[in-house]
Amino acid sequence: MIILGIDPGYAIVGFGVIGYSNNKLTPIEYGAITTPAHTKTELRLCEIYDGICELCDKFKPDAISIEELFFNSNAKTAVNVCQARGVILLAASRRGIPIFEYTPLQIKQSVTGYGRAEKHQIIAMVTTLLGLKNPPKPDDTADALAAAICHGYSSSSMLFNLK
Amino acid sequence: MIILGIDPGYAIVGFGVIGYSNNKLTPIEYGAITTPAHTKTELRLCEIYDGICELCDKFKPDAISIEELFFNSNAKTAVNVCQARGVILLAASRRGIPIFEYTPLQIKQSVTGYGRAEKHQIIAMVTTLLGLKNPPKPDDTADALAAAICHGYSSSSMLFNLK
Repeated sequence: MIILGIDPGYAIVGFGVIGYSNNKLTPIEYGAITTPAHTKTELRLCEIYDGICELCDKFKPDAISIEELFFNSNAKTAVNVCQARGVILLAASRRGIPIFEYTPLQIKQSVTGYGRAEKHQIIAMVTTLLGLKNPPKPDDTADALAAAICHGYSSSSMLFNLK
Repeated sequence: MIILGIDPGYAIVGFGVIGYSNNKLTPIEYGAITTPAHTKTELRLCEIYDGICELCDKFKPDAISIEELFFNSNAKTAVNVCQARGVILLAASRRGIPIFEYTPLQIKQSVTGYGRAEKHQIIAMVTTLLGLKNPPKPDDTADALAAAICHGYSSSSMLFNLK
């Protein structure tokens, strides 16, 4: 199974493509879609949409795993990240790829065994689990890989599926 | 000039198409795109995207006028509305239609002359300004028409453009 993990963002959208079969994780490709500052919102949303479509076309993932968003502020940033997440979901849906959403807690727990893990712990575990030579950068990419790993584990876990 | 006003939403996206020339407002079409409850988010976002594309193709607006969003809560609703707004901006951008954003205060002020006008005052003024027989329903449609009117007035007002 090929899983595309996505860390939704506006300036930076992290992505991580992994293979998962027989409890074995394989890194395929990872990185980030970045959109230029000082550019109209709608054009940045177009870049994100196109970027996700390209990833879907290139890697033909069987599933997309994406973090749920929660708001704690009325910041402009939150609005933009959410708008970006909307076009990401649209792109995945248009390509007919099933979408799975996980809370940050579920992702952290899945990758580190601890729901309140720190950022550096996530990065270290992602690097180890995927056997990467270096920690993935930026952090958004590590988060995207963590989301992908979370879905891999979840999809193979009866316990999780029966929740 | 043909203006498509949009009231961004998730379950209901209000829209209002008006003509504006020589300070004269003409209603062309108005209503709402509704998406079914208990349906996956991504499918509802697809319906909104397709709906906006259809409106753009049918009425070929010269401008799209849409309300800015502000968050005061971390409600799930806010996330969904924002995601919907993302696909609305994407649809407009894909059709090459310039997008203009106004704050609720700007829209209210433009339509009623008072930035803190109540909902019923907006509806009454929209009905009067466009010479409609009946108040537009649902409220989202009235808000969309108000956004369209706001852009009509703004685009013809040097004072506003120079702000």
